[in-house]
Amino acid sequence: MRIAVLSSVAWRTPPLDYGPWERVASLLTEGLVARGQDVTLFATADSVTAGALESVLPHGYASDETMDGRVWEAMHVGHALERSADFDIVHNHLDWLPLAVAGSWGAPLVTTIHGFSGPDILPAYARAASNYVSISDSDRSPELDYLATVHHGVDLAEFEPSTEAGDDLVVLGRIHPDKGTAEAIEIARRSGRRLIICGPVVDTRYFAEQVEPFLDDEHVFHLGSIGPSDRSRVLGASAVLLHPIRFAEPFGLAVIEAIACGTPVVAYRRGAMPELIDEGVTGFAVANAAAAVAAVERAAVLDRAAVRAVAERRFSVERMVDDYVAIYHRLLDR
Amino acid sequence: MRIAVLSSVAWRTPPLDYGPWERVASLLTEGLVARGQDVTLFATADSVTAGALESVLPHGYASDETMDGRVWEAMHVGHALERSADFDIVHNHLDWLPLAVAGSWGAPLVTTIHGFSGPDILPAYARAASNYVSISDSDRSPELDYLATVHHGVDLAEFEPSTEAGDDLVVLGRIHPDKGTAEAIEIARRSGRRLIICGPVVDTRYFAEQVEPFLDDEHVFHLGSIGPSDRSRVLGASAVLLHPIRFAEPFGLAVIEAIACGTPVVAYRRGAMPELIDEGVTGFAVANAAAAVAAVERAAVLDRAAVRAVAERRFSVERMVDDYVAIYHRLLDR
Repeated sequence: MRIAVLSSVAWRTPPLDYGPWERVASLLTEGLVARGQDVTLFATADSVTAGALESVLPHGYASDETMDGRVWEAMHVGHALERSADFDIVHNHLDWLPLAVAGSWGAPLVTTIHGFSGPDILPAYARAASNYVSISDSDRSPELDYLATVHHGVDLAEFEPSTEAGDDLVVLGRIHPDKGTAEAIEIARRSGRRLIICGPVVDTRYFAEQVEPFLDDEHVFHLGSIGPSDRSRVLGASAVLLHPIRFAEPFGLAVIEAIACGTPVVAYRRGAMPELIDEGVTGFAVANAAAAVAAVERAAVLDRAAVRAVAERRFSVERMVDDYVAIYHRLLDR
Repeated sequence: MRIAVLSSVAWRTPPLDYGPWERVASLLTEGLVARGQDVTLFATADSVTAGALESVLPHGYASDETMDGRVWEAMHVGHALERSADFDIVHNHLDWLPLAVAGSWGAPLVTTIHGFSGPDILPAYARAASNYVSISDSDRSPELDYLATVHHGVDLAEFEPSTEAGDDLVVLGRIHPDKGTAEAIEIARRSGRRLIICGPVVDTRYFAEQVEPFLDDEHVFHLGSIGPSDRSRVLGASAVLLHPIRFAEPFGLAVIEAIACGTPVVAYRRGAMPELIDEGVTGFAVANAAAAVAAVERAAVLDRAAVRAVAERRFSVERMVDDYVAIYHRLLDR
């Protein structure tokens, strides 16, 4: 099967640091190539893939002030559109722009909706009536029809199952009110445990006011942004991942990465969390900080091998690739 | 010849008020239809044309806060792209997005570049290497190749040649620093003539600080935004149109509308002004306010019939349509 994977071009694919859409596109692409599929990845020119690479952008626009993201993203989409008749399937990971030209693709277009930036973009989805895949059941718009929900997977080889861990708690993700960094600090304080904060500062004022005053190395430690190679080590060494999000997160890669390391998760019960956490097995989805403090102690004693086993069953790249290949076949059989 | 005209969708085509891109697209479309061409206008659904109308947007996004212009404009382009193989020529008046998908149009794409919003959009133009038409020689980017410059035209029947006029000066356009409303007030004051200001307030702070304090009905009068039907009357009743722009304006519809009314123009020598003004015949392009004050008296005594005659020769819709039809034939003969 000749498959075009249209990645996001904010960052390279896979991203060196932040870039969840690019990360998932990469995991899928490499998983498909490993199955012997003929895959062309449309991504930035500095991207890395075992498949074929097609590029318009030299590098991601998000780190280059001279590049207008709207313009370069549109050229990227235009390039893939022009080549699209060479493929059996085009798999879009890029938001709404490919949908605006939905009638002109030379092959069936599958769109994984990685999240809606706002209600204003819904008309493009509603009008295109493309083949939509949700990344969690919780993220579905009632206005759209979906082919399936496909949860993301991780490369289990990248995440070592850790059977022993220390007492520290960890929070992993952008430092932003949405991600609940301040809530994690409160939960850790009330738990009497140290908190390791991993992630880039996205909201500087929030960081200065609600995070930085608590940094003292003894109780709260900011490790900064950590790349893929460090994630396994840091997650694996932690007792519990805190994920006290303040928004309906459509997925949560950090959550399944923790589970892959055998590290239980205590999250706020919002967005995709109830779908990602096997209650009492891989962690707990709770309502507030008091419940989180109680849940931390119960989570810390969960069987870490059992946590890892859930990742192997539910959150492997292989399972994600299986799901998508089945979708491609459904479309080609139509 | 089957021609698709892709208008801008910020406003309806033709616009009820402001909307120069939509106005030119309309003038061209109706001019082509009058020649017996088979024209389809891609524009908002409330647009008015003697040709066929194709629409995605119910109305212009610029007047509807619930519409995300990026999204709706992309759907509009996508709709035209999907239909493009039904035409011999697609004529784009819409900026850079159609160029991002330049390789996928089903017919030769001609793009009239109505202006560059900024240098960040140039990569889309450079990469597409489409068939570009500049609206003035002054607006050409040295990085691009052009087929031709085609100056806009106006419907001469809409603009009555006025052989008698009062002593008032007039300025017509958005009230914005670029357009030099404050400069016009100064020139009028130093000329001892009343100034009629026509145009919507775009920059409210500029209006409050630099325009409103001078409004007194006796010396400076704000008539508000005037639609096409009033423009002929207001321009024709004025001694001189002031156009003291502070930016390199790529064209200036108000200037040729004044000329069509037989009203001479005094403009700042920037952008397209030297191309649009026949020095000493239809007005003067000058360097500063002092020169403008002197030029006003010389312009006010120019032969208004001779001014109108220039419009008939250089700025009629018929001439603009001729120019574009010649371009279409050049492309089809390739």
